[in-house]
Amino acid sequence: MQTTAARPLVSVEESGAFIERFSLPPTREGALSGLRFAVKDIIDVAGYATGCGNPTWLATHPKATVSAVCVEQLRAAGAACDGKTVTDEVAFSLIGENYFYGTPLNPAAPDRAPGGSSSGSASAVACGLVDFALGSDTGGSVRVPASNCGIWGLRPTHGVISVAGVLPFAPTFDTIGLFSREADVLVRAAQVLLGGEPVPRAAPASIHLVSEAFELADESVRAALAPAVQGLRAQYPGRVHSSSLADICGDSKAADFGVWFRTYCSLQWGEIASSLGAWIAAAQPEFGPATKISFEMVNGFDRSRLAEMIAERERLARGLARGLAANDLLCLPTTPAGAPLRNSGQDRRSDYYRRALSLTSLAGIGRLPQVSIPVATVANAPIGLSLVGARGCDMHLLAVARTLAAHLGAASPDA
Amino acid sequence: MQTTAARPLVSVEESGAFIERFSLPPTREGALSGLRFAVKDIIDVAGYATGCGNPTWLATHPKATVSAVCVEQLRAAGAACDGKTVTDEVAFSLIGENYFYGTPLNPAAPDRAPGGSSSGSASAVACGLVDFALGSDTGGSVRVPASNCGIWGLRPTHGVISVAGVLPFAPTFDTIGLFSREADVLVRAAQVLLGGEPVPRAAPASIHLVSEAFELADESVRAALAPAVQGLRAQYPGRVHSSSLADICGDSKAADFGVWFRTYCSLQWGEIASSLGAWIAAAQPEFGPATKISFEMVNGFDRSRLAEMIAERERLARGLARGLAANDLLCLPTTPAGAPLRNSGQDRRSDYYRRALSLTSLAGIGRLPQVSIPVATVANAPIGLSLVGARGCDMHLLAVARTLAAHLGAASPDA
Repeated sequence: MQTTAARPLVSVEESGAFIERFSLPPTREGALSGLRFAVKDIIDVAGYATGCGNPTWLATHPKATVSAVCVEQLRAAGAACDGKTVTDEVAFSLIGENYFYGTPLNPAAPDRAPGGSSSGSASAVACGLVDFALGSDTGGSVRVPASNCGIWGLRPTHGVISVAGVLPFAPTFDTIGLFSREADVLVRAAQVLLGGEPVPRAAPASIHLVSEAFELADESVRAALAPAVQGLRAQYPGRVHSSSLADICGDSKAADFGVWFRTYCSLQWGEIASSLGAWIAAAQPEFGPATKISFEMVNGFDRSRLAEMIAERERLARGLARGLAANDLLCLPTTPAGAPLRNSGQDRRSDYYRRALSLTSLAGIGRLPQVSIPVATVANAPIGLSLVGARGCDMHLLAVARTLAAHLGAASPDA
Repeated sequence: MQTTAARPLVSVEESGAFIERFSLPPTREGALSGLRFAVKDIIDVAGYATGCGNPTWLATHPKATVSAVCVEQLRAAGAACDGKTVTDEVAFSLIGENYFYGTPLNPAAPDRAPGGSSSGSASAVACGLVDFALGSDTGGSVRVPASNCGIWGLRPTHGVISVAGVLPFAPTFDTIGLFSREADVLVRAAQVLLGGEPVPRAAPASIHLVSEAFELADESVRAALAPAVQGLRAQYPGRVHSSSLADICGDSKAADFGVWFRTYCSLQWGEIASSLGAWIAAAQPEFGPATKISFEMVNGFDRSRLAEMIAERERLARGLARGLAANDLLCLPTTPAGAPLRNSGQDRRSDYYRRALSLTSLAGIGRLPQVSIPVATVANAPIGLSLVGARGCDMHLLAVARTLAAHLGAASPDA
């Protein structure tokens, strides 16, 4: 069994990535023997508290006595668990600055935020403290920190990897995702979590460069990603095309990212209120300033719009499903810009946040898998290129991404 | 807007279907205006406690302050909510006898159990007290009581209808399902919950009579369902064939229902432990005798087998997905026999329970939609015929089921 030893760039303390450090051995030998992973602190590990990034949550919930299914699955495949990592409060931010537990280090750009909400898991991997890490991705919480920290990040097809033992947040969007520094480690861990789906050898049929997504990103991001996009064209000649979401989905409204953004936010807020409302009313938790703003938006949502917003979501999702055959892929920038500077006071009202969430809403609404590939930097900050696959075609998606990264060679931070 | 007035067969008190009766008006007019529904008591309704069928749960959780997304969705489409219904403890049974809250009436067979765990929702619909009802279906908890009570039951494609505000139990299997007495009401309510998926006009391509499923059922059930199967053949000449699961899935192991049963149970137990373990350890709940046995089985599961069992589940699910094109259907008995007699001491070790859960595990493992159609009786107890559709093809499935029921005419209890 191949072992990839993690090589720490900084100490655990300097990283600020961990809430609690411990070592749980694997329960069996398997495909992941020799690898060590960290777990976002909204995911249960038996014997440890699940704090969800908020002191009131920690105080009002019993310690976990059983680990989440995804944690046991990895241990049963040979991996060892190295601890729990910092998360944004109740996983509700893309920034990665926790008012109570601090901001994990982004070692690729130490003046920048790591991105969230799986901030500590991204940091632990980027700092070389573990081989891979579990995060969760509802609205971008794996993809954004992966892009910011210059590592690989996978949001899988919705509903395949079990969320048993994970904070329920916005269930029609909630997924368990993965971070790694190396494509091979990501492929191995994903294959375990996805239940051994074989890695197909088929080349992609069509790769759509989503024109509205590239337009939404900063000019500097388009320029920084251009060599990787060129690499994709070279790798798959004649199969890479600029396409509008209107054409992909067969729906003129789909060309407006405002539609995706509003639909995503409405449903996320609607679901979060159902998931956390009773706890908030009973426990009256203290939240940090940015989280307070997030919950004001949740509370401001008119719930009598739920039927109409769900219909809109499913219409968009059907459009994506029709437009994306099993071997097709979408390609887009993971984020519209490099990570925000630390302590720059970003919250979900900012232009950056709105554009980031717009880009990530595509896969969320479609329940589709997305991988962020660490291919470039912009103003000394990493930026990821994303591929989105058809539903259930996660391993095909990862195979193409790995091939692209190998083809790019020196252009990848990994090489 | 068409209004279907519920015509009570018995009083609310005689039905034993409700935990709490109230009336919440719709929040908007819409496709369901004039209809009234009941809600299984594991689903939040703002202002009311969610008891999950267990007094310790009730005592250790705050009252809901926000309704589940599915409840708000129905109210926003014009439906009124009439109350909360009895459920088996934490939704963990197919029988429908709650040690603490009693056994709702099965009006079609008063000496029989209604089936569970959505016992009260099935009873409220069958007793004519509401037009339709929300249940949840993890391992059969809508399909089985629908079959037992002689009404329609839908388990939708997994992951489409939001479970925000619903007890998390075994998340890769958990779905929100529907009961109704009439196909048209079921179609209208399902279309709202599924986000307005259009009803297709396409006829089915192939309908596979699952040979192992018919063999697993009692001989009397096969005989009782024969006219409906004959109706299916008459409706779709040349498209209805007896098929082995081995051929459908392209996998010789799939012909053994023991494989499906073991895989389903292992993963259900593995997920339930992650979902409820911390609460059980902290609250030390009192459970009824059958529920105690269920949790002994949960606790006896060796969690180091999770990776292997998940791989097995995904292998079976991929087989079903390959074998079932968008317009294809499976046909099988919903249950292997009529409902057990009341107070007959059934628990999950019984032969009936094992066979029932084997039949329902197909759609669960495959994350596929299934509708149970009230077509027959056996020894004076109703028995449903089920159709299973491809993933996301719920409305196609319902359209075929409605056509079949109309074709059967007088053979249907509805006609």
